[in-house]
Amino acid sequence: MDWLKQTIRPPDQRQYQLAMQKQALLTKPPGSLGQLELIAARLAAMQNCEYPFIERLWVSVFAGDHGVAEESVSAFPQAVTAEMVKNFVSGGAAVNVLSRFVQAEFEVVDVGLLKPVAMSGVVERRAGNGTANIMHQPAMTEDQMSVALQAGKEAVERAMQAGVQLFIGGEMGIANTCSATAIAVVQTGLTVEQLTGAGTGLNEQGVAHKLQVIKQVLSLHQQCINSPLKALQYFGGFEIAALLGAYLAAAQNGLTILVDGFISSVAALLAVNINPAIREWLFYAHCSHEKGHRLLLEHLQVRALLDLNMRLGEASGALTAVPLLQMACKLHNEMATFESAGVSTD
Amino acid sequence: MDWLKQTIRPPDQRQYQLAMQKQALLTKPPGSLGQLELIAARLAAMQNCEYPFIERLWVSVFAGDHGVAEESVSAFPQAVTAEMVKNFVSGGAAVNVLSRFVQAEFEVVDVGLLKPVAMSGVVERRAGNGTANIMHQPAMTEDQMSVALQAGKEAVERAMQAGVQLFIGGEMGIANTCSATAIAVVQTGLTVEQLTGAGTGLNEQGVAHKLQVIKQVLSLHQQCINSPLKALQYFGGFEIAALLGAYLAAAQNGLTILVDGFISSVAALLAVNINPAIREWLFYAHCSHEKGHRLLLEHLQVRALLDLNMRLGEASGALTAVPLLQMACKLHNEMATFESAGVSTD
Repeated sequence: MDWLKQTIRPPDQRQYQLAMQKQALLTKPPGSLGQLELIAARLAAMQNCEYPFIERLWVSVFAGDHGVAEESVSAFPQAVTAEMVKNFVSGGAAVNVLSRFVQAEFEVVDVGLLKPVAMSGVVERRAGNGTANIMHQPAMTEDQMSVALQAGKEAVERAMQAGVQLFIGGEMGIANTCSATAIAVVQTGLTVEQLTGAGTGLNEQGVAHKLQVIKQVLSLHQQCINSPLKALQYFGGFEIAALLGAYLAAAQNGLTILVDGFISSVAALLAVNINPAIREWLFYAHCSHEKGHRLLLEHLQVRALLDLNMRLGEASGALTAVPLLQMACKLHNEMATFESAGVSTD
Repeated sequence: MDWLKQTIRPPDQRQYQLAMQKQALLTKPPGSLGQLELIAARLAAMQNCEYPFIERLWVSVFAGDHGVAEESVSAFPQAVTAEMVKNFVSGGAAVNVLSRFVQAEFEVVDVGLLKPVAMSGVVERRAGNGTANIMHQPAMTEDQMSVALQAGKEAVERAMQAGVQLFIGGEMGIANTCSATAIAVVQTGLTVEQLTGAGTGLNEQGVAHKLQVIKQVLSLHQQCINSPLKALQYFGGFEIAALLGAYLAAAQNGLTILVDGFISSVAALLAVNINPAIREWLFYAHCSHEKGHRLLLEHLQVRALLDLNMRLGEASGALTAVPLLQMACKLHNEMATFESAGVSTD
């Protein structure tokens, strides 16, 4: 797993400066396009070009099962992970609709469902038959983690091959807010109480139970966690490992990443803690309604683009933000300057 | 101006209920698409149909000059209003780039520039040669106001003729945050200090001066203001009148409205105060960086879709939010149900 620590080069600072200078010449009060100006300048720096663009983009949804689903920590039964994978292949899920809308290339990767779905169209990179129940043992072995991380890396390789300008990772895995929350606790220092939310829609009682489960999981494993990768190995899941592998690989390849919701942000947190240079390659699409997400974004000192009370995962929040990146580029590239349009500045 | 008070029928409540019921059947945790679910249901109700859609949309940018620009209340000279109108016609402004991106029909309406621009492609519905300086007299006569309101109504008639599903109004008018702020003060009860912002980019000193100007304007006219229309007539401007006329006419015609930033929201405030039934026909696109906007949205008890520090006007914020409405519709119309996809719910 040495590849995880490969160098991530910074986006081109000179292009960033040039882009910001150009923004000041466009026919609008300086700064009046707000976040859209910064997006354009960051993309110019990442793409090392004067006219940044997002025309082709890639979505990989990683799906895996969680042993801890046995503990009734989700509002949905474990079977839903595999059922939703079939829905992804059939094109009926939110992520499919949104991928079609923004014309993203879409794939779903089985990184460890309980058992493979009997259906063509799924990329199989299985690290196991679901993770172990983290109430009793680590989620995965080191070897399994390596396979799941590699699955993310390979998704990015396919994306690079397709010549995309943006990588989006998504996840599906019943009970995975449990794993993500445990990782977030040990990697941020925030408390279980601050970070535990309703996931797919637990009621108050359900959240209280889930919180107790996470506390027990933490007290069982916490003393073994001395690195981001140990947190991942002990708490899971395979799809979070794949997201982490994908994010690191994308940044290593100079490919812009748009982070989805809470689970994806936990993968981003791990990536940042492994190699802080990745920060410059990440956009955060939205602040999810999942309780811990806002605090996690604050911890990461980042601002998400959207805040629409979404909490679906699957990459749905990231896809919803794609047009913002595209519009930021178009404005940057196509607006007239004060000089070319003959507009006075004073 | 009797037409201003024409009945606005409510969106179809039954379609709203049916849409919300349908949302609960789609393959996602109930409520997990957040605002997008409510958008789809509201659009279904407005369009009185099961499959709402936004395929064609219309943008009218209303431009007018302000006598109060003499008082140095803007970071830009008055000439910029007309210069930007030319830029709109040439296609180089932010609103043009964004209109192309979302394939909106675009027009610019001169509702009272200091003098007409010598350029074809501008719809001329001039209510005067700029408004009067509100430091000394009312912005416009009743007759002028009637012309400007009518200009908005006629823009909606053109939009209806084109068969659009969404109306967006924009504005251009150097010094118009001055007028909008004065209107907002008298129509909300919030203070000048709470509502006065930097507009196109005044420095601290500039804002302090603008605040004094607005205070003087208010002390001169406040005793004459006993209705929303009086506020409009005394404080201006023509483009705010046109927006108000357009909003009321759109709602009267059952056409959905997407409100842009601070100035547009002040027009919406006037519309709501004239006929509260318009509320149901309005979406608020974004919370602008202009200081008073957040408080104004709170006063209106509405939540804007985006919060990206934009403060450009021209309808730019509204256009940036258009894909959200479109994605909300696509999700509503195209997602599989739990039943059709064979996904378990418990």
